[in-house]
Amino acid sequence: MTTHKFEHPLNEKTRIYLRVESLLKQLHVSSQFSDDLQHLLFFRSLFDLLEIFEQIQLKSELAKDIEKQRLSYKSWLNVDGVDQGMLLDVLKEVDAVHNDLMGAERFGQSLKEDRFLSTIRQRFNLPGGACCFDLPALDHWLHLPIEQKNSDTNQWMDTLQPLANALQLWLKLARETGHFKSRIAQNGFYQSDAEDANILRLDIPLSYGVYPMISGHKNRFAIKFIDFQTGQACTQDIEFELAVCS
Amino acid sequence: MTTHKFEHPLNEKTRIYLRVESLLKQLHVSSQFSDDLQHLLFFRSLFDLLEIFEQIQLKSELAKDIEKQRLSYKSWLNVDGVDQGMLLDVLKEVDAVHNDLMGAERFGQSLKEDRFLSTIRQRFNLPGGACCFDLPALDHWLHLPIEQKNSDTNQWMDTLQPLANALQLWLKLARETGHFKSRIAQNGFYQSDAEDANILRLDIPLSYGVYPMISGHKNRFAIKFIDFQTGQACTQDIEFELAVCS
Repeated sequence: MTTHKFEHPLNEKTRIYLRVESLLKQLHVSSQFSDDLQHLLFFRSLFDLLEIFEQIQLKSELAKDIEKQRLSYKSWLNVDGVDQGMLLDVLKEVDAVHNDLMGAERFGQSLKEDRFLSTIRQRFNLPGGACCFDLPALDHWLHLPIEQKNSDTNQWMDTLQPLANALQLWLKLARETGHFKSRIAQNGFYQSDAEDANILRLDIPLSYGVYPMISGHKNRFAIKFIDFQTGQACTQDIEFELAVCS
Repeated sequence: MTTHKFEHPLNEKTRIYLRVESLLKQLHVSSQFSDDLQHLLFFRSLFDLLEIFEQIQLKSELAKDIEKQRLSYKSWLNVDGVDQGMLLDVLKEVDAVHNDLMGAERFGQSLKEDRFLSTIRQRFNLPGGACCFDLPALDHWLHLPIEQKNSDTNQWMDTLQPLANALQLWLKLARETGHFKSRIAQNGFYQSDAEDANILRLDIPLSYGVYPMISGHKNRFAIKFIDFQTGQACTQDIEFELAVCS
């Protein structure tokens, strides 16, 4: 791996979407329980998701955003030079995902009502609190046959499927709006205007030994590269790839 | 696996010891980074340890407890029927561990002073906060060659070695004081007196489908078995193995 792929959200809502995407991925990977400790990551991801669901009305926000995408795609109907077959496919997918989303329970509702999950959630955030004596019910559950555990985890994850599908589609379409272009950060600094942007995507050669600190909003952003070794602002020119996605 | 091994600390200090033991084990296992997400568990365990170090004077507590064990073993010197060779070996080991402990820095001191660790620690507990944009320095570190990462993790873990050795010895000697005996919890309930006990160890046949809820202190304890399916107190007789360790 010679480049460092990096994404930065330009507003709070997209920030949450990307965090939720990352948590859903962790949930999926760790649900395999292929090693002894993955259950810790599984439940941590699940409870992090519940905490986010309690903080924002994710379902209605996402429905609004999917609706916005639908309108934007609809405006390309019957426009010359636009592949109408592909466009209709996307619109069909957007419709399906939007319908599922509207028919879904409030995100996390049934997980919050699950007796077992509620029991262990309270103590899960104690430092070192996943010991058997802190969470005897969890310890018992971990001793159940793998089929039983898989059945439980699948059931919990199924309740998040409408969210996962909608979020995945929204992020896919958002990412597709941006195209990588070569850019140079002179003296380690780059800034630019944007138009209603949601996500910046960067591809940075690892050989520079730098990582980006990004500030900004939908219409303007600045990227400052930091030298990993010193923790100071980097002063050399950095050539990188940038895609601005809306 | 047909039984459920369970440990319960009978005082707050032993509770912390067992949590720290569990965190050190997690740290060790996850430091292999054999899958993409284990680093999350590694840093979480490390920061949980730092949080515990800030809450209690673990080093002096552990030194006192090791000293107590030394005195107790010393009282067996020159006693007929006691294997003096084995006793001297234990005393030598206790001395070595105690010396290392006294010569060690305050637990976590150099980890707290590490610039990289301090940078990422602050945001690590945000729900879903391990995304690249929340922790760009961590994201860069994860892209480093595995040799570099191993060198860093080994250096961090080395600073905890005196703690790990002392804790391991203390827990080993404590656990050895107890011997498993068959017990019956009538109607799912068992209580008993103890003498200056630190840890209860239980071995419960999984077939009962129960887990223990334990309350008590060094001189008296009660075990109530809970039916996992219903979450209610179990009312059948439970035959289990119990070791009381001091």
